[in-house]
Amino acid sequence: MQEKTTRTDLADLGEFGLIKHLTSEIKPSNSSTVIGIGDDGAVLDYEGREIVVSTDMLVEGVHFDMAFSPLKHLGYKSIVVNISDIYAMNAQPRQVTVSLAISSKYSVEAIEELYSGMVLACKMYGVDIIGGDTTTSNSGLIISITALGEVVKGKSVQRSGAKETDLLVLSGDLGGAYLGLQLLNREKEVWKANPNMQPDLDGHDYILERQLKPEARKDIIKLLADLDICPTSMIDISDGLSSEIKHICDQSNVGVELYEDKIPIDPTTYQLARDFNLDPTLCALSGGEDYELLFTISLEDYDKIKSNQDLSIIGHITAKSAGLNMITKNGVSVELKAQGWDGIGAKD
Amino acid sequence: MQEKTTRTDLADLGEFGLIKHLTSEIKPSNSSTVIGIGDDGAVLDYEGREIVVSTDMLVEGVHFDMAFSPLKHLGYKSIVVNISDIYAMNAQPRQVTVSLAISSKYSVEAIEELYSGMVLACKMYGVDIIGGDTTTSNSGLIISITALGEVVKGKSVQRSGAKETDLLVLSGDLGGAYLGLQLLNREKEVWKANPNMQPDLDGHDYILERQLKPEARKDIIKLLADLDICPTSMIDISDGLSSEIKHICDQSNVGVELYEDKIPIDPTTYQLARDFNLDPTLCALSGGEDYELLFTISLEDYDKIKSNQDLSIIGHITAKSAGLNMITKNGVSVELKAQGWDGIGAKD
Repeated sequence: MQEKTTRTDLADLGEFGLIKHLTSEIKPSNSSTVIGIGDDGAVLDYEGREIVVSTDMLVEGVHFDMAFSPLKHLGYKSIVVNISDIYAMNAQPRQVTVSLAISSKYSVEAIEELYSGMVLACKMYGVDIIGGDTTTSNSGLIISITALGEVVKGKSVQRSGAKETDLLVLSGDLGGAYLGLQLLNREKEVWKANPNMQPDLDGHDYILERQLKPEARKDIIKLLADLDICPTSMIDISDGLSSEIKHICDQSNVGVELYEDKIPIDPTTYQLARDFNLDPTLCALSGGEDYELLFTISLEDYDKIKSNQDLSIIGHITAKSAGLNMITKNGVSVELKAQGWDGIGAKD
Repeated sequence: MQEKTTRTDLADLGEFGLIKHLTSEIKPSNSSTVIGIGDDGAVLDYEGREIVVSTDMLVEGVHFDMAFSPLKHLGYKSIVVNISDIYAMNAQPRQVTVSLAISSKYSVEAIEELYSGMVLACKMYGVDIIGGDTTTSNSGLIISITALGEVVKGKSVQRSGAKETDLLVLSGDLGGAYLGLQLLNREKEVWKANPNMQPDLDGHDYILERQLKPEARKDIIKLLADLDICPTSMIDISDGLSSEIKHICDQSNVGVELYEDKIPIDPTTYQLARDFNLDPTLCALSGGEDYELLFTISLEDYDKIKSNQDLSIIGHITAKSAGLNMITKNGVSVELKAQGWDGIGAKD
């Protein structure tokens, strides 16, 4: 493989040049993409299906740290976090638009790396890049992505449909992405103190991947369809379990009882939380960025999922008057607060 | 009217608080908006029509200068420039998503002002705000908007359909937005030199409005439909006439003959260009931001538009081999170059 040593300034290409350069190889693969990149707008045909639209903005220094985010991973992640929202509506992502504001510290080659991660994620999830915008930024990199997906009419799942006695179900496990960030921040501080030190990341592949290259749970949407389960409500874990539960309860006008001992936490996540003197449960509740799916199902669907290793029943929906509570490992009921990152002080 | 003197820090509301605060009054008005703001994604139903999607990013210090952009105007303009792209596809805008990265120098009240301009533009053009994202920025304000619109299947107009002998037609007039920017920049310099000086903007309402509060040509799309004209190609004037003509010719694989004396320039624009020692034609060719529609029509549609005061026939399409040329007022044929802003040195 040839080593990349070239540095091309963005100004050498100009805006139109950069767009052409990045997108010249991109060909739509979905039948719903009638016209892709290259005009005032893209044209889509969803042939009677409903359209789901979601948008997210990622800002350097707020959502990612260039000290430890490889650009290709960052590109991949920026697509994944957006299409995760489409899955959380029970829809299939089909298209994305990608807008970038880029400061002059980035070379064309750096933006190519970023874009290659985006293209890879789009390929993995069967999504077309149909347009976007590139512009100058005065500080750092800003990524704004809008994702579009399709769903059979009336089959989208909102946050608002949870009913009393419904089961609260979660895919995968939690806290890993947050611990990955803690580990990267620790090694960054070590490196800042002594740039000759090599970062000590051995044995932490799982949590690092959870932070740097998360996946969206396409498989869960397929599984639910195969099992003929239509969740009564659904959301993805971007801000943390407690925050997402609160969204569902607020919008469904219900309460919840969450069981601490049922919250799935990977053993390596658990151990690292202990090493950092952090409560593993708090990392799951408030860490966020795990991009797992949290949903509620009717009690009668219990048998269909009870033996699935990738789904955990972590609680059940109660009357609104009962409030939002967590039954701790000690059997005590405590009020569940949506803390986001503030509770553990890592992110603003 | 009550004077606004309150300043609320963004941090006091938090991200979820800010979104709720800004969007609490927003109710969808289009039948295609099934579910609007408040879930992982919005849900739309275009009932057999095609979807047109376009996206734009506006960056403080690059696309706008807070020294002279009133926030309400800026909000209005940010919506207009996006839906102008939807009209340029011969489609009707229906929805927008709005993402904002905001630095702490902005108060909640400032963002309310910005948002009120967006809401006003959406009301004027019959568009629903269906979602978005707000986040922290380390420097200034970044606005990323994605617009969606609908068009009857097969009726979208691309840049690629211009044919030899087609007429090149333009709505409205050009150069005003650019001259408005020159005027604002001049007064800013005066003000910087002496903050006690009042800006001298009298008598320049037209060009200031062209720069600060442009409109998209919804009326032209309606007119073309009423006249039963389907343009063979279309684009909106965002970067300047020469740049847009080049896009059409490149993508249609044709040449063009443009007549300098047919380029519509408002008398006040013309006079101000002279005052600034600028060539009015160059301001029209390279100024941009006029958001007029440039399109080509078949010769047989000539009679339908020839007496319309708001449409100018400024040239005709030729064979590709003839190249891109402008016939000057002196009758000389010169090569048309896509200069964008570089030619007149105002914008990078």
